[in-house]
Amino acid sequence: MTKEKNDKMEKIVALCKRRGFVFQGSEIYGGLSGTWDYGHYGSILAHNIKQLWWKHFVEEREEMFGLTSTTLMPEAVWRASGHLDGFSDPMVECGTCHHRFRADQLTLEDREKKICPDDGGPLGTEQQYNLMLPVVLGAVAGKSNKAYLRGEIAQAMFVNFKNYIDTMHPDLPFGIAQIGKAYRNEIAPRDFLFRVREFDLMEFEYFIRESDWEKYFELWRVEMGKWIERVGITKELVHEIEVGAEDRAHYSKKTIDFEFDYPFGQKELYGLAYRTDYDLKKHGAESGVDLSFFDEQKKERFIPHVIEPSFGHGRTLLAVLLSAYKEDEMNGEVRTYLALKPSIAPVKVAVFPLLKNKPDLVAKAREVFGMLKKEINAIEFDDNGNIGKRYRRQDEIGTPLCVTVDFDTLTDNTVTLRDRDTGKQTRIQITDLLQSIKSKI
Amino acid sequence: MTKEKNDKMEKIVALCKRRGFVFQGSEIYGGLSGTWDYGHYGSILAHNIKQLWWKHFVEEREEMFGLTSTTLMPEAVWRASGHLDGFSDPMVECGTCHHRFRADQLTLEDREKKICPDDGGPLGTEQQYNLMLPVVLGAVAGKSNKAYLRGEIAQAMFVNFKNYIDTMHPDLPFGIAQIGKAYRNEIAPRDFLFRVREFDLMEFEYFIRESDWEKYFELWRVEMGKWIERVGITKELVHEIEVGAEDRAHYSKKTIDFEFDYPFGQKELYGLAYRTDYDLKKHGAESGVDLSFFDEQKKERFIPHVIEPSFGHGRTLLAVLLSAYKEDEMNGEVRTYLALKPSIAPVKVAVFPLLKNKPDLVAKAREVFGMLKKEINAIEFDDNGNIGKRYRRQDEIGTPLCVTVDFDTLTDNTVTLRDRDTGKQTRIQITDLLQSIKSKI
Repeated sequence: MTKEKNDKMEKIVALCKRRGFVFQGSEIYGGLSGTWDYGHYGSILAHNIKQLWWKHFVEEREEMFGLTSTTLMPEAVWRASGHLDGFSDPMVECGTCHHRFRADQLTLEDREKKICPDDGGPLGTEQQYNLMLPVVLGAVAGKSNKAYLRGEIAQAMFVNFKNYIDTMHPDLPFGIAQIGKAYRNEIAPRDFLFRVREFDLMEFEYFIRESDWEKYFELWRVEMGKWIERVGITKELVHEIEVGAEDRAHYSKKTIDFEFDYPFGQKELYGLAYRTDYDLKKHGAESGVDLSFFDEQKKERFIPHVIEPSFGHGRTLLAVLLSAYKEDEMNGEVRTYLALKPSIAPVKVAVFPLLKNKPDLVAKAREVFGMLKKEINAIEFDDNGNIGKRYRRQDEIGTPLCVTVDFDTLTDNTVTLRDRDTGKQTRIQITDLLQSIKSKI
Repeated sequence: MTKEKNDKMEKIVALCKRRGFVFQGSEIYGGLSGTWDYGHYGSILAHNIKQLWWKHFVEEREEMFGLTSTTLMPEAVWRASGHLDGFSDPMVECGTCHHRFRADQLTLEDREKKICPDDGGPLGTEQQYNLMLPVVLGAVAGKSNKAYLRGEIAQAMFVNFKNYIDTMHPDLPFGIAQIGKAYRNEIAPRDFLFRVREFDLMEFEYFIRESDWEKYFELWRVEMGKWIERVGITKELVHEIEVGAEDRAHYSKKTIDFEFDYPFGQKELYGLAYRTDYDLKKHGAESGVDLSFFDEQKKERFIPHVIEPSFGHGRTLLAVLLSAYKEDEMNGEVRTYLALKPSIAPVKVAVFPLLKNKPDLVAKAREVFGMLKKEINAIEFDDNGNIGKRYRRQDEIGTPLCVTVDFDTLTDNTVTLRDRDTGKQTRIQITDLLQSIKSKI
């Protein structure tokens, strides 16, 4: 990783902590590796990304259904899905310090020398290390009820397939979408939000006739591109890579990885896979439940095939931050700001009185704030510190617009409306303010 | 439980399954006890309740901050919080079948006879059974990294307290709010969504000066009442019960339980607790990190006290369903409907062509649907089955309004707008439709 890129990553991690976006999980106890907590602005940004995804892929369509399933699923599900056998990473362990490493993440030199990067001890032979996290639920002593925290959310869509057929009576194609947590016992969590042990996925399984698979694969490839632009990820940093047969998951006949230029390398952001009828067949056989679809018109019964677009939520948030992070020069100083799309910005508008200690200004600013708050939920009132400091703070959290009430306001009922990206301020009548803001966000 | 009440519970569970609200988790594999999946309408209803809660307690206020923290937290957190010692239920085990029961849920007769209700075997002595679910995260062999799935979400607010002080610079009082999952290894999951192993909580910790505790306890007691009305829980079914000193949690000086008249008894819905400074003090001492607040005006440093309003999300959903479930007689038949508040109803409006096989009607209905969809996301187009069947379906999922395009529409541009609760239909000009719908939802 070049120094410049490394710097950018460090700057973003620091901004996230300084401005209340992301904190290390359980930090006061030394941190739990691979877990991150979203602070105030981070929670809202994370939530807004989920909402926008749901709007794009579910609400704005008519053939999509939602699902919110539990993260605990019984062993039988993961046996059928192949996760108990196949969901693993290659691992090596040091013979002296017993630290474990992902074999494919060691440097070529370490791999050849077989010497531990931590203490120089001898590395053992490569083993497959399963990423599923078991949880024992007990109601009967001795006879444990073994479940797993789900390693992916897709299995819940397959396991619930028949429920949707029975209750929603859909025609093909239709999709079952879900946003929810998944867990992986990563050997080496790293790279901030990129490789973690607990994370959200946004995903849907799109059920089709086999003969249509190329058409819908292409449709979703294009839609994923539209989403990337809509959420504010720089398109030029995303690369579509078709995965070769030898690297594809066992269930897939065609996979495209959407890779992003992170500072730490070009790595996976999203995936698009044609899963065939593998999962429904497997769960049908293992559970003994009929998971077929009946075509009323053709009077045919068959197992639908599946296209799966899959979106890491934390990776989206990271790619959005990396795309939005900007530095420029303003008033002779380096300025940092997040050029977030207004649709996902945690705060849409901030309202300031020019000075905190002038009751007239504060009262007028409160009045303007109150008027806007009725129509815009994500709005903030700020009278802390000087005005320059307040602009810098709003720039760093990505607030598209700031409204300042100054002495002129008291006589002519105008305020300044400041644009985050240009820093330009325009005077505007308070009566026109709401309309003007609405047109910009 | 009386037969009538039992019937109501059965009817609601059946409606939830029939209409795609709630399914048993991993049902095709026999179900995982204590887990429930939300289907299409259930997901949306569940989501809408969360959104409304967030609006009521966070967005509409200025002193509240959001948090979204991980469900995995290290052992040290749960040792400090007292959960490893105290978070348990009394359990008895049968000596022959080894089934386990919550001692306090056995009938008096079984408790006295000490005979297993399942096989008549001898029940052992009462033991404390810890409800926390351990998860072992491994990166170093032998030296396991023991974490727990959180048994409550409040600890994350305390553990992150300093992050909020450092990044948001709040004055007292302020709150940290979160909606998120918690897990409990319940001995005997039961009563549908009431006692489960995986569930969402909606909660905030409200940090105050000690001298203000009675004032804010009362403020939140009143606000919780307003929320109960806003979300659509029948107020008369909720009872505020002050918990006696002997039954309060170890950290609490005053607790009110909000109990609801479920068909299976009057049991907890929400809790309101004055937690004193117990948690911040404990985590400060255990972590060695200073968790105090500095009052800039008085130049005083102290540990804030805490008021905690806590809301079970699944219990809210269940209480909402129980409050909304209605049966009446319409056109000589028993009709079932959910009188959900429009703010949380999964579908706000459904649009129908009177007949499916009349292209003119379908095209016109599509046009009306398209116009409404631009402004109202949660809208459905339905041309399945006859019109009576469609009304019944929308009634059962709680859709407040239905719009029907019939033959008159083609000549006079009017449609019928049907009200869910009264079943009354009024003719209305299409040009007035959007405005009329907006005023009703």
